Amino acid sequence: MPGSSFGRLFRITTFGESHGPAVGVIVDGVPAGLPLTKEDVEFELSFRRPGRLFVSGRREKDEPEILSGIFNGRTTGSPIAIMVRNNDIISSLYEEVKTKPRPGHADLPFIFKYGYENWDYRGGGRSSARETVGRVAAGAIAKKLIMSKGTLVAGYLKSLGPASTNATDFHSIICSKYSPVRAPDKETEEIYEKLVKEATVEGDSYGGIAEIVADNVPRGLGEPVFDKIKADLGKAIMSIPAVTGFEYGLGFRAASMKGSEANDEIVSESGEIKWKDNLSGGILGGITTGERIVIRCSFKPTSSIRKPQGTVDLRTGEKTTISVKGRHDPAVAIRGVTVAESMVALVLADHMLRSGVISLSKLEKEEAEASQRNWERYVKECVPMEGSQ
Amino acid sequence: MPGSSFGRLFRITTFGESHGPAVGVIVDGVPAGLPLTKEDVEFELSFRRPGRLFVSGRREKDEPEILSGIFNGRTTGSPIAIMVRNNDIISSLYEEVKTKPRPGHADLPFIFKYGYENWDYRGGGRSSARETVGRVAAGAIAKKLIMSKGTLVAGYLKSLGPASTNATDFHSIICSKYSPVRAPDKETEEIYEKLVKEATVEGDSYGGIAEIVADNVPRGLGEPVFDKIKADLGKAIMSIPAVTGFEYGLGFRAASMKGSEANDEIVSESGEIKWKDNLSGGILGGITTGERIVIRCSFKPTSSIRKPQGTVDLRTGEKTTISVKGRHDPAVAIRGVTVAESMVALVLADHMLRSGVISLSKLEKEEAEASQRNWERYVKECVPMEGSQ
Amino acid sequence: MPGSSFGRLFRITTFGESHGPAVGVIVDGVPAGLPLTKEDVEFELSFRRPGRLFVSGRREKDEPEILSGIFNGRTTGSPIAIMVRNNDIISSLYEEVKTKPRPGHADLPFIFKYGYENWDYRGGGRSSARETVGRVAAGAIAKKLIMSKGTLVAGYLKSLGPASTNATDFHSIICSKYSPVRAPDKETEEIYEKLVKEATVEGDSYGGIAEIVADNVPRGLGEPVFDKIKADLGKAIMSIPAVTGFEYGLGFRAASMKGSEANDEIVSESGEIKWKDNLSGGILGGITTGERIVIRCSFKPTSSIRKPQGTVDLRTGEKTTISVKGRHDPAVAIRGVTVAESMVALVLADHMLRSGVISLSKLEKEEAEASQRNWERYVKECVPMEGSQ
Amino acid sequence: MPGSSFGRLFRITTFGESHGPAVGVIVDGVPAGLPLTKEDVEFELSFRRPGRLFVSGRREKDEPEILSGIFNGRTTGSPIAIMVRNNDIISSLYEEVKTKPRPGHADLPFIFKYGYENWDYRGGGRSSARETVGRVAAGAIAKKLIMSKGTLVAGYLKSLGPASTNATDFHSIICSKYSPVRAPDKETEEIYEKLVKEATVEGDSYGGIAEIVADNVPRGLGEPVFDKIKADLGKAIMSIPAVTGFEYGLGFRAASMKGSEANDEIVSESGEIKWKDNLSGGILGGITTGERIVIRCSFKPTSSIRKPQGTVDLRTGEKTTISVKGRHDPAVAIRGVTVAESMVALVLADHMLRSGVISLSKLEKEEAEASQRNWERYVKECVPMEGSQ
Repeated sequence: MPGSSFGRLFRITTFGESHGPAVGVIVDGVPAGLPLTKEDVEFELSFRRPGRLFVSGRREKDEPEILSGIFNGRTTGSPIAIMVRNNDIISSLYEEVKTKPRPGHADLPFIFKYGYENWDYRGGGRSSARETVGRVAAGAIAKKLIMSKGTLVAGYLKSLGPASTNATDFHSIICSKYSPVRAPDKETEEIYEKLVKEATVEGDSYGGIAEIVADNVPRGLGEPVFDKIKADLGKAIMSIPAVTGFEYGLGFRAASMKGSEANDEIVSESGEIKWKDNLSGGILGGITTGERIVIRCSFKPTSSIRKPQGTVDLRTGEKTTISVKGRHDPAVAIRGVTVAESMVALVLADHMLRSGVISLSKLEKEEAEASQRNWERYVKECVPMEGSQ
Repeated sequence: MPGSSFGRLFRITTFGESHGPAVGVIVDGVPAGLPLTKEDVEFELSFRRPGRLFVSGRREKDEPEILSGIFNGRTTGSPIAIMVRNNDIISSLYEEVKTKPRPGHADLPFIFKYGYENWDYRGGGRSSARETVGRVAAGAIAKKLIMSKGTLVAGYLKSLGPASTNATDFHSIICSKYSPVRAPDKETEEIYEKLVKEATVEGDSYGGIAEIVADNVPRGLGEPVFDKIKADLGKAIMSIPAVTGFEYGLGFRAASMKGSEANDEIVSESGEIKWKDNLSGGILGGITTGERIVIRCSFKPTSSIRKPQGTVDLRTGEKTTISVKGRHDPAVAIRGVTVAESMVALVLADHMLRSGVISLSKLEKEEAEASQRNWERYVKECVPMEGSQ
Repeated sequence: MPGSSFGRLFRITTFGESHGPAVGVIVDGVPAGLPLTKEDVEFELSFRRPGRLFVSGRREKDEPEILSGIFNGRTTGSPIAIMVRNNDIISSLYEEVKTKPRPGHADLPFIFKYGYENWDYRGGGRSSARETVGRVAAGAIAKKLIMSKGTLVAGYLKSLGPASTNATDFHSIICSKYSPVRAPDKETEEIYEKLVKEATVEGDSYGGIAEIVADNVPRGLGEPVFDKIKADLGKAIMSIPAVTGFEYGLGFRAASMKGSEANDEIVSESGEIKWKDNLSGGILGGITTGERIVIRCSFKPTSSIRKPQGTVDLRTGEKTTISVKGRHDPAVAIRGVTVAESMVALVLADHMLRSGVISLSKLEKEEAEASQRNWERYVKECVPMEGSQ
Repeated sequence: MPGSSFGRLFRITTFGESHGPAVGVIVDGVPAGLPLTKEDVEFELSFRRPGRLFVSGRREKDEPEILSGIFNGRTTGSPIAIMVRNNDIISSLYEEVKTKPRPGHADLPFIFKYGYENWDYRGGGRSSARETVGRVAAGAIAKKLIMSKGTLVAGYLKSLGPASTNATDFHSIICSKYSPVRAPDKETEEIYEKLVKEATVEGDSYGGIAEIVADNVPRGLGEPVFDKIKADLGKAIMSIPAVTGFEYGLGFRAASMKGSEANDEIVSESGEIKWKDNLSGGILGGITTGERIVIRCSFKPTSSIRKPQGTVDLRTGEKTTISVKGRHDPAVAIRGVTVAESMVALVLADHMLRSGVISLSKLEKEEAEASQRNWERYVKECVPMEGSQ
């Protein structure tokens, strides 16, 4: 049954396979009046694009075409369809996969579910991370929409294999998008790059942890009791290929703590109620507190590795090995940061509409202008939004 | 906007507040022909019931009344409404909360969202874990439904504060339901009990980690790309009060591993394709592999503690402290295990319907009988289902 | 699969069978701050209550119990569960139905769908019009909510069997609720009553057409392209038991007209753009124009009649006849008017939330007060709302 | 908020405006294994294509491109995206509309809802019937899917302006697709053609009534109580541009009848239970009976007419007139028949999945073959399906 849609009021539906004609997305529920161009979408796509250093060698220009929903540079309230053609396809690399399912991949589950004879084995078909092009394209719209309220989502790679770091401030997180390994500082960048190069040489791969932060989040987002913001973020993030875990605030660390340690004191700051240390990552009772949202997710190492691995030949049922060809990321977590950012932006856009923070039918002129101004800061200056603390 | 429903084809809608007249649930989408009695629901509710040792002292008999959807001891295909009256209410304990929001609680977010004047401050209102009565009642139906395919969901407390353990086998997990602290063995039980007693004396609380395992899961569950089984489990679990993190299989550990370590070899066992070590927790590409599903979630320590904590007086804006009264669990994770089990069962029931594994309109006679037989084993013998490995 | 919910943002889920313990509804998505009492719900239920003259003789007090979502006389933003116990049940009347399916009823389709052995044959089970108690209870909340914008929904019986009429003004439509046959004037009332008496004597029944009008409707409701207001009204109305047709504005009459006749001229009235004759029933392109919404629906004659009708004995497969016992309305269209009003109110409440006309999380004080003031006018004075034209 | 999706399990999302780059649809929820080609989609599109005699003069080749979801000529279970480029666009014809809203059109409602500055006035933008390209493309898939069970949906034009007819048999209904005015017989065709020519000469237009029949429908489709098949058909049909009314079976005629006339006798025919005259149009209690589904809908006359009509100049607020230019159908009902057929097929496909009649994940080989065989009969021979009565 249908599983290609996400979101309730800001609703996306993605389509496309790794080696089909195109991938893309329909974004429905965008209020009228948001300034939007093809270049805005392209900007976001550039950070998940393959062919950059340290990621997959597949060369896709990933040029989006907006097929509907825009008139005179602004959204009209109608659904926005965006398509990206698949160009650099080498399906011949996948002939071996047809009979030797790859460890760590969805090959066998797809065969179980849809039937061997209906299985598009080329490049993982629908289970390929290429599907996330649609998410990131939609994420560009979501990011721009929530900028009408000054909200900014940004992330970085908190750990890569055995190495880890802590971003010192929000600015360094925003700027990590210009690091080829999504590191928040130069020192970490060098360490991550070294690890990635080693893994590439070995024909192996690494996992990693992304941390995503949302700044300037309106209070009161999240709908009890099932559509809590933490639940919708959890679903959004867990739906990303290769993600194996999700947490927010103290996360798993809270499990070994006492209540007197994990509870965050409520304080008054210049007449405004706040929390002392934001231990809860901006969320209490599943509802945003107005503090920064902080979430983390773990990516498993790229499943496609050159090192031979044990599998079964589907024709004979005999044991065999496969060395996965094709052009693959040494650590999917690197490009995964952009995808995770997009998913967080989608959830926030959806919930700003759901709680009425953003108007459902059309933006006011000032909202549209704030969005455009903040977007330009984001693109050019790598700095937080207006109104950020 | 509405957030009280969960599931697509097996769909529940809960209602009720901590100190209102009743809590309950409507379960819609249950096929006709499933044997179901009030006692079945009561059995599951008994494991989350307050008033047992080591959990909250609130004494609720939690007697469910089935208001619809059952005829002659079987489901009819119509929605099943279940109501549990709230009896042991002492709202006077909450007068202080009216002006002193509790750290770690949803008091302030509810005020932000719905307005101070509309806030039901008694016992947390809708944000109270009492809401989970409806989830567990629905979980009983879900558990029984998926037993028609021999699937069993069971969980235990993997860690409590500083202590942790590993269940040695599935049987010990099932039987942990009879441990007052959800420990899978006697030794752990003693450690957990000691910790709980200490926390109670100190007026403090502990966090913990629950591990939930589903045995005998059909292959092919999960709908790409957003309704992957890992995504729906993530949402289900993250929607539980006090849960701060979710993972499956290797979870966060995968982030520091290499691909050659984290990938699980595909093997052939008596002609059937399987995975060597089930490192992926029964899920690949977001679809079930047929291996056991293994998920974990972290619960933060109970927020309600007697130890005084800093807050702000809403009348004056001045700093003050609150010592939370009322009858509270020293570790919500204990009763949380039952709630997490229910949520996993709900997701599996939903996805067995979504993939057509369970018939949508009515059960066949043999399915209904298998469900009843397995349920009786579950209730009486604390053993796995028929067909389990 | 689940079919017991209606609405997207103002979302109801009904439960209950004719002869089960109770019927009722959960209303999710009601903003906080709406004044609401049990009496408000009871007021609306009184117009669909059986036991009044000219409707079914079943004597149900239909006393609603509000189980959740209200605190201090106002909604809290949490789901509102309402339950009405079934009291006056005489199931013995239905023993014959067990083997002789009733013409015009859902007996056989339910048997086909859910299996004979799971079929609740008592009083039609879930297919009984008793289910509409939940709709009307929810409709009371919807009506009160949209009164915060001065919108009022009212209906009358435009035709009964061979007789028909036209309401002369909106006031007479509102006041028809106090007519035992929902006639908008005394003369028609007499004609309708005479027809109803004749049908009762004959052991037969009549069909009828209800016309429902919504006054003071905000412009811009309806979401292209599938959730047009005409489409959602169509679904809402067609889901009512016994309804066989739906139309709005010119309806079926438009089919035989020319464009130059059916198009409505756009005019300017004191600086405001309006339509000359509201030929389109307040809807163009599926979106509200601000003119009155006018819809009509046909009810078939009550299927349960004393006159013997041909059927088949399920035990023998032989031809037989059935004379339906039980207490039945001579024309379901009479009580159907109230149900249709409720469904229209539900759609309007949903769409006022969907377009942002009514705030999603909480009402402003003035909105709450306007709602209460308008409700009191509605209850006491049988007059249009404030701001009505 | 989003309104561009329809269906629960067979779920379509359309995009595109009259004068944008493209129109299209994503169809999600199609089981794997259905044979499907671009030509299948093209075949259905050919019946709603403009540029044929008696319909709009716009010349669109309407060549569909399938962007995803197909591999080796069969569906894979992944979403199917279909795009049709807009080619023959003459936007200059719409400059006048910018300031003179057209009577009978959605111009003003769109301005109210989304803001004048965000309004795509070219050719009606999203409110144009060009959007139905996506519906018909999806309808082709739905039709082919339900042919796996031998179900066939076909329709004809029952009335055009003052003229009307009754199809004598199902075959003549199927073959009406080759009539340029969707007449079921030659005599009617001549009458309809004459009316259409007259209207064209006058610069006027006609309304009409389409009757759609579904043959060989499985029993038990429809989900009580809101997703009754009559309710979902009602919504589907009422969402079509220009449709003003919907009815099934006796429809509005039932309102003036007695129960003893409108009830249909249950009879036994060669051991099978059936209904004597199918007065209820194949639906009882909102569930299919297995008899033919018969529905009718009224189309208003094309709103775009050359005859001058009164409107208001938006710049001055003064009275003026507009004579609508562009290439328009003299009777939208003609092409509307194909759209209505598609919507009925979409509802049936959705409900066959919802009740489990069609498998959710993949078709069996025999089902796929039956679908292909029946499709070929449909395309070539204009005859009912296998198994039809």
